[in-house]
Amino acid sequence: MPDLDARLEPILRLLHRHDLVRSLAQRQSPAKPELVDSLIERQYESELRRRLAALDSADIAHLLEMLPPQPRRAVWHQVAVERAGEVLWEAADTVAADLIEATDRDRLLRLCWHMDPDALHQVQHLIPQDVLSELRNTLDPGKRAWLRTTARYAKGSVGELMSPDVVVVPEAATIKTTLKAFRQLQEVPDQTDQLFVVDQDQRLIGALPLKTMLVSRPRTPIVELMQPDVQRFKADDDAQEAARAFERYDLVSAPVIDERGRILGRLTVDVMMDTIREEAEDDLLRRDGLSGDEDLFGPVWRSAQRRWLWLAVNLMTAFVASRVIGLFEHTIEQLVALATLMPIVASVAGNTGNQTVALFVRGLAMDQVNSGNIRYLSFKEAAVSSINGLVWGSAIGLVASALYGNAALGLVMAAAMLINLILAAVVGIAVPAAMHRLGRDPAFGSSVLLTFTTDSMGFFIFLGLATVFLLP
Amino acid sequence: MPDLDARLEPILRLLHRHDLVRSLAQRQSPAKPELVDSLIERQYESELRRRLAALDSADIAHLLEMLPPQPRRAVWHQVAVERAGEVLWEAADTVAADLIEATDRDRLLRLCWHMDPDALHQVQHLIPQDVLSELRNTLDPGKRAWLRTTARYAKGSVGELMSPDVVVVPEAATIKTTLKAFRQLQEVPDQTDQLFVVDQDQRLIGALPLKTMLVSRPRTPIVELMQPDVQRFKADDDAQEAARAFERYDLVSAPVIDERGRILGRLTVDVMMDTIREEAEDDLLRRDGLSGDEDLFGPVWRSAQRRWLWLAVNLMTAFVASRVIGLFEHTIEQLVALATLMPIVASVAGNTGNQTVALFVRGLAMDQVNSGNIRYLSFKEAAVSSINGLVWGSAIGLVASALYGNAALGLVMAAAMLINLILAAVVGIAVPAAMHRLGRDPAFGSSVLLTFTTDSMGFFIFLGLATVFLLP
Repeated sequence: MPDLDARLEPILRLLHRHDLVRSLAQRQSPAKPELVDSLIERQYESELRRRLAALDSADIAHLLEMLPPQPRRAVWHQVAVERAGEVLWEAADTVAADLIEATDRDRLLRLCWHMDPDALHQVQHLIPQDVLSELRNTLDPGKRAWLRTTARYAKGSVGELMSPDVVVVPEAATIKTTLKAFRQLQEVPDQTDQLFVVDQDQRLIGALPLKTMLVSRPRTPIVELMQPDVQRFKADDDAQEAARAFERYDLVSAPVIDERGRILGRLTVDVMMDTIREEAEDDLLRRDGLSGDEDLFGPVWRSAQRRWLWLAVNLMTAFVASRVIGLFEHTIEQLVALATLMPIVASVAGNTGNQTVALFVRGLAMDQVNSGNIRYLSFKEAAVSSINGLVWGSAIGLVASALYGNAALGLVMAAAMLINLILAAVVGIAVPAAMHRLGRDPAFGSSVLLTFTTDSMGFFIFLGLATVFLLP
Repeated sequence: MPDLDARLEPILRLLHRHDLVRSLAQRQSPAKPELVDSLIERQYESELRRRLAALDSADIAHLLEMLPPQPRRAVWHQVAVERAGEVLWEAADTVAADLIEATDRDRLLRLCWHMDPDALHQVQHLIPQDVLSELRNTLDPGKRAWLRTTARYAKGSVGELMSPDVVVVPEAATIKTTLKAFRQLQEVPDQTDQLFVVDQDQRLIGALPLKTMLVSRPRTPIVELMQPDVQRFKADDDAQEAARAFERYDLVSAPVIDERGRILGRLTVDVMMDTIREEAEDDLLRRDGLSGDEDLFGPVWRSAQRRWLWLAVNLMTAFVASRVIGLFEHTIEQLVALATLMPIVASVAGNTGNQTVALFVRGLAMDQVNSGNIRYLSFKEAAVSSINGLVWGSAIGLVASALYGNAALGLVMAAAMLINLILAAVVGIAVPAAMHRLGRDPAFGSSVLLTFTTDSMGFFIFLGLATVFLLP
């Protein structure tokens, strides 16, 4: 199979060529007959459909994610309705929302009917209420029941991500009867590496790996072969915790049970991989106050608004930091070099503090930090900052005193650097730790909060020391 | 199975209690007989060993990652030598390096002998040269051959991550003969969801899913059942690309082939999950100039040194930005409010620019950005910045003019904000795009580089405009 870029390339070329042809036609005959135009369109659309049909749903979703709004919708309208639901599900949430907005009610209903129940469950929050209620009345009973079951579980829980494709075996079965039942299944779900063994009350009692079935004698009772200590999850469990368990114990699938131990559904490694990716990518964006499902190629106006709240917060913090400087305008008037040097103190502490935040947030995400070692960690980061503050604070202090021929100024600079670096380390641990303890996302906006502290405290320490020690 | 925290909890308590007992004993009888001390130690160590034996290797690695240097080594010495290699392999690279440093040559050799060849291959870069060469002479021939094969492939390639556990079937086989051969295997490797079908020259011609084997008649020739278009990788392929293919096509395992199509090894989803996690976590750290394998609980001194290079770079850039202010000291002397307001211009642009970098780097990582849409993206980010610059620049300009009773100052402030925000968007795309085109990591240090630009240009634009328009 050629790689993804090679597979998408012809479609991108087609879109590009179509743009050219259209603009050429417009330029050459602005009053061209409608017929020619619609012929070109029809030919183009059928070519687009043909190309799309040859792609995987995941590939189409990827293509849509990388297209600007206009061609994105043009391509979307040519996706066959039978596959459109799967494409929606594979696409990032904001892109899916954009596509749903561009889909008429009728097509939306039809594409939902074709979706798997777990996929439908996961995109339903993007679908307009009125379509959703009509959908609930027209869906087949199995899917409706699944939507009702999963509606009980919160976003980010195992229950949200489980799928109904479970193959169970009664405990009384033998390999032979299991194989017979297995052959009668129309389709074995993907990522089935084990069957789940249940007792008479449908409670999970173990798992039977497919490979064990292959190498065992037909008459063996499965209770002799099954693994009773199979890793299982409760529907209320945190999905990210489950994903980490998949990573740690190399799972391919795992049963999801209710409080009484009965099987509700199944988690599979493909969904867990997406969870891992999303969690990590979200952390990356949340540090800068962005939400994980920002649409890279979305419309300008929506993107601008999405960033307003954060920009306003940032403006406020910068304003407060600036008022700190305002307190010392009298000092600066007498020694203008202070205005020149003060951003160095703030900037270096901001950067090292952000390093501490990045390390610590990762430690939290990987479950490496707990109440026992957080003290060591704070001590360690403060110690690292002290060493660096002494070494590099002295260096910049020397440069400053040479530059302005003022040894006292150099000393103040060095002292301010040292204090602000230590402060940055402490705040770099304290802010995400406090957010985490309050049950908030420790990454969210930490970079603005930290920079606020290192800026305003940096200005305060540096200008304060200067006022005390340097003014005549 | 209780969750991870619950499983590690008794060990953490044990370590803690031991610390208490020891410090108590020292305080109460500083001249205590050696015998009592060694009795306490022996009892403690055997308890520790017993507890460790009940844990998974991945759990032990996790425990070691979250311990400070001293208890980390104490625990490590109690891990059975048969499992120690697997623990090393599961641990993060820096932690593994720290553990190897604390291991004597003899134990290191023995634990390597117990390792799987693919695990050994992946940790060998951490093992001292002299141990490694002795190891090469004493390993069994199979492992030695594997090390020789994989040595050809670069870090970050599929060849580095593949494992030798491949189950192949000749094309002439039937289901019956395959099942028979399968039963004779001592152990079927984990994450085996399909067998690979090869022709007479050992070239891959397809794959046979286990579930197909279960539901097919014994006499069927496997060539009739196999899937010929199985997703395969070359050993030179990029591991992160492969991980994305696993995500996209929901793979559990895939064959790795050489140039002539012969099977070299196998990639499995558990290794790919780790690759995804590492890639994303690394991006998070690299933005702040940290390397992915920074050891959170490592020794202070080493951590301090690891951050020196970056701190020095940051100090240089901050110094240059400060020199930009230095150019305008004469202006500031006449209007000290400029010193107070200038950090706002720099800070807000720095934060919005970092948002652009975060979004763009993620787009690159997810393969959503290409030469066709980068122009739209630059335009879009610049447009978002213009809107935000107009709205929020005017707001802060109004505040500044009210605060200092100087309308011209407010206008200069608003203009400087607008220009610097647009600049931040352009640089936020241009810097990572240039790094990417040069084949460098687009994330690495981008936050320092961006802040450098927004700081120095912010100061220059604001103070420059002020010099031209505000000075008498």
